[in-house]
Amino acid sequence: MEVINKINSPKDLKELSLEQMKSLADDIRKGILNRVNKIGGHLGPDLGIVEAIIALHYVFDSPKDKFVFDVSHQIYPHKILTGRKQGFFDDDKLFSITGYSNPNESEHDNFIIGHTSTSVSLACGLSKARDLKKEKYNVIALIGDGSLSGGEAYEGLNNAALLNSNIIIIVNDNEMSIAKNQGGLYKNLKELRESKGQIQNNFFKSLGFEYTYLEEGNDIEALIQTFKNVKDINKPVIVHIHTLKGKGYYPAESEKEKYHWQQPGFLNQNKKTVSEETYETITTDFILEKKALGEPVVAITPATPGAYGFYQEFRDKLNENYVDVGIAEEHAVAFASALAKNGAKPILAILSSFVQRTYDQLSQDLALNNSPAVILVFWGAISSADATHLGIFDIPLISNIPNIVYLSPTNKQEYIKALNWSYNQNNHPVVIRVPFGIVQNEINCKTDFSKLNKFKTICKGSKVAVFGAGNFLNLAKEVKWELEKININPTIINPIFLTGLDENLLEDLKDGHSIVVTLEDGVLDGGFGEKISRYYANSDMKVLNYGAFKEFTDRVPVDKLYEKYRLKKELIVEDILKIV
Amino acid sequence: MEVINKINSPKDLKELSLEQMKSLADDIRKGILNRVNKIGGHLGPDLGIVEAIIALHYVFDSPKDKFVFDVSHQIYPHKILTGRKQGFFDDDKLFSITGYSNPNESEHDNFIIGHTSTSVSLACGLSKARDLKKEKYNVIALIGDGSLSGGEAYEGLNNAALLNSNIIIIVNDNEMSIAKNQGGLYKNLKELRESKGQIQNNFFKSLGFEYTYLEEGNDIEALIQTFKNVKDINKPVIVHIHTLKGKGYYPAESEKEKYHWQQPGFLNQNKKTVSEETYETITTDFILEKKALGEPVVAITPATPGAYGFYQEFRDKLNENYVDVGIAEEHAVAFASALAKNGAKPILAILSSFVQRTYDQLSQDLALNNSPAVILVFWGAISSADATHLGIFDIPLISNIPNIVYLSPTNKQEYIKALNWSYNQNNHPVVIRVPFGIVQNEINCKTDFSKLNKFKTICKGSKVAVFGAGNFLNLAKEVKWELEKININPTIINPIFLTGLDENLLEDLKDGHSIVVTLEDGVLDGGFGEKISRYYANSDMKVLNYGAFKEFTDRVPVDKLYEKYRLKKELIVEDILKIV
Repeated sequence: MEVINKINSPKDLKELSLEQMKSLADDIRKGILNRVNKIGGHLGPDLGIVEAIIALHYVFDSPKDKFVFDVSHQIYPHKILTGRKQGFFDDDKLFSITGYSNPNESEHDNFIIGHTSTSVSLACGLSKARDLKKEKYNVIALIGDGSLSGGEAYEGLNNAALLNSNIIIIVNDNEMSIAKNQGGLYKNLKELRESKGQIQNNFFKSLGFEYTYLEEGNDIEALIQTFKNVKDINKPVIVHIHTLKGKGYYPAESEKEKYHWQQPGFLNQNKKTVSEETYETITTDFILEKKALGEPVVAITPATPGAYGFYQEFRDKLNENYVDVGIAEEHAVAFASALAKNGAKPILAILSSFVQRTYDQLSQDLALNNSPAVILVFWGAISSADATHLGIFDIPLISNIPNIVYLSPTNKQEYIKALNWSYNQNNHPVVIRVPFGIVQNEINCKTDFSKLNKFKTICKGSKVAVFGAGNFLNLAKEVKWELEKININPTIINPIFLTGLDENLLEDLKDGHSIVVTLEDGVLDGGFGEKISRYYANSDMKVLNYGAFKEFTDRVPVDKLYEKYRLKKELIVEDILKIV
Repeated sequence: MEVINKINSPKDLKELSLEQMKSLADDIRKGILNRVNKIGGHLGPDLGIVEAIIALHYVFDSPKDKFVFDVSHQIYPHKILTGRKQGFFDDDKLFSITGYSNPNESEHDNFIIGHTSTSVSLACGLSKARDLKKEKYNVIALIGDGSLSGGEAYEGLNNAALLNSNIIIIVNDNEMSIAKNQGGLYKNLKELRESKGQIQNNFFKSLGFEYTYLEEGNDIEALIQTFKNVKDINKPVIVHIHTLKGKGYYPAESEKEKYHWQQPGFLNQNKKTVSEETYETITTDFILEKKALGEPVVAITPATPGAYGFYQEFRDKLNENYVDVGIAEEHAVAFASALAKNGAKPILAILSSFVQRTYDQLSQDLALNNSPAVILVFWGAISSADATHLGIFDIPLISNIPNIVYLSPTNKQEYIKALNWSYNQNNHPVVIRVPFGIVQNEINCKTDFSKLNKFKTICKGSKVAVFGAGNFLNLAKEVKWELEKININPTIINPIFLTGLDENLLEDLKDGHSIVVTLEDGVLDGGFGEKISRYYANSDMKVLNYGAFKEFTDRVPVDKLYEKYRLKKELIVEDILKIV
């Protein structure tokens, strides 16, 4: 840990000997392991790219030369070298930095980035602007092999190839996406690795790039030479480097998918033996049951199977009924739509933050074709996530598309009913917002999804009606208990549908109720509550909508957000009393 | 016109001799020219694919074998051969069919398709479902070279290559996208054409496909042989055929971009000499002015420059300040975002229907980075368009993303002010909903976009306030005149911002007004009006929201839609009087 102490900016790096740089690499790995072990984060990709980042900063001159880090899964060493090592070594300051590229932290980061496959397009824009302004410097995109399967990356490559100017695209090939790579491209990368870049048929060259290959992607000296060779180049070039994902920490080298991202405490963790029930296990159980019946079920994931418990054992059991399409969310939705149209039973699992990549496919490939595919949206909730991974926008995104039915079950039994109904019907594209958090149970659950837009009344009261959608049904119940203390006995509604209104119920509420409250675990703008407000807008009913504000929050504790959005029983009751 | 009379389904085709098929090709071209000359439509791509479609139906057995037509720009000959020739030859029945793939018309169409680059993913789904059900038939995607630049096509190819089963992808290479092809890929296609498919470095092979090339893409006999060779193949194959866009109609052969799509009457049209002012010419004039000043303006289009008047002369003048990224909407937004971040002045023009493809790029690459790029959304309006090309969803799509400022100017002077303000500022990503229709003028326009979310009061009245957003400001004025007849003198507001509320103004309206009416030229759900309803939901103000219903309409006359949505002055006044 001697060398790292000398490094406060990339300039300091340029004074080091090769031996010192090797020692620095060890130091950096310690920092990465420390941070991830304390607060969780991306491990494997960062461990694998250490030497390359050292070499990049040795050869290029950031911030004059501009780096773009695809999806930021390989940015930790860069952060360590650019004045942010406290976020890795100082346990009191781990939260002083985000896990993602962020210009608010450092002039060495050029964009806020957390979704994949954007780096080449962004680098294109930097290059083109540079050229128009007649400036001179290098623009370097660093993209992993996994991110190359995303359509945006391809659109970027296809355009970058025409730039006729400096743009250097480093392809960090660690032979892995988040899970295993998927796609024809990866055979080509394998052939390129095996032939040391010499094979004739070359994806990158076919798009018109200059191309150079380096097998020793963890050898600082070789990397420096390779990068020197392309520095100040006046045309688009691909530098394909072969690295070892997880390098320097044996478990991460051998179990690449497991250690792509790790949770706090992984260094000391014992093997998990608890097999707790989660909404993920409920999902996989449901799918396996269909498989066992010999049905043409197809579980689909765009590259993040672990996020919803689609672990190896599950995939092995499903076999041909499982498709990981790689990082290719657009394809995933179109593919699911066509599967359903042709009589198969697709169930596509995707995170709220990433379903954003599929709006047009949801609209055109799925909804317009009224294809009865089932899509499960996980992690839809107000959270303390990084600004790049918020799960609050899916309700406006999905619920305002015609034909789609968006369900919001609130507990295990409802979720299973939602799965069964959507799986068995053939009339609608159905999206299910999977409940978030600890599994809740409802004894004798009578929820019925078969009557479209028929909401479920939990209990009938008067004066106030509280709509608790999805995860916030519990909050609605808490509000009820709070109101009961002051002798108001409210009606509680579980809407169960986010895509349409139960107009009969809304009409009936006018009798005996003067206030309607809506609670949704997502952004207010364009969401569920606004539809209720619109419905009652020309009546005497007063409506209060609760949900997240339209803003990108960044690692704000949930409780703070609830406070700000007044998503707390006392605050809601306070608001109700103002207008009662 | 003898042969066509015998053809009522693909089966009839199989009886024909080669000579008869050639004669049939001539007949089909007459039908295409007749339809497009009468009601407009896609001309060049359909003329070029006639022989290939004949050969496809001769070799394959639709509907058992399943075709998927990318973007449907090459579907007319298929429609003629599959029982829909009345839509081309019978002038009374031209409107009996859509210009797009549509299963509601025929069992020979498998999907409703109007956006590009979806066919390979859809074909993947059909193939996978077939295999799971242990069925046997061919799945054939027909995709033009232009559509290959779209990310969804690449994601589909990358996955299709792994199918290990029958999927036949016909690449119809007519050397053109809607405008000129853009991207490194197209150099490769050129090399493939020039080497008759023999060159070693081959984009499709690099993705793992079997590959076959046919130079004589307009030779029925050669096509039949080529398709026979791949029929019932048990692995993914690319059949790259070289066709002549516009074939058989000389002007379309020579001016490929102009005749990609044509308007009714083009066969007899004289050269346009009128140089009428449109919102398109206002846009190009604005951009050219910036170019003349030597500013780093960059006009960007994703492949549809003609749609907003970015004609050749304009592009030539702009030169390096013009970038057509090809069909690559995602890249376009990320590219624009990075250009702006690096000090250039990007102005990206895109149609409302296609901006749908960019939600995640608008959110992550643009908004989260607060990049001051300017995006112009054209054709945002309730219209009689085909279901695949509606322009009503952009307000919910864009306005619910944090940080973006969405402007809705209503006339020439406001539009220019919106352009100037958005171009000159550096704090916000700005989207402008370009007014739709005939250019309107406002003498002495004082609109000021610099005060965020400050609405413009057109005239102050009482009792009723009407918000006319964008194209519907005129309707608001009509409502005013109608109300004046019954002695109500309403307040008229031009909101000019779609992404935020002027809360001071809304608060002030509570004084002296009891009804607020909102009018927006787009879907109600998630739109502008709902935000007003939410704002007033806990007050005594009554709100009426007008806009389109959440539905895919298909070539419904605008007037009928206005009637249905009550977007007519008499109907609105009728509604107002019910609650006044």
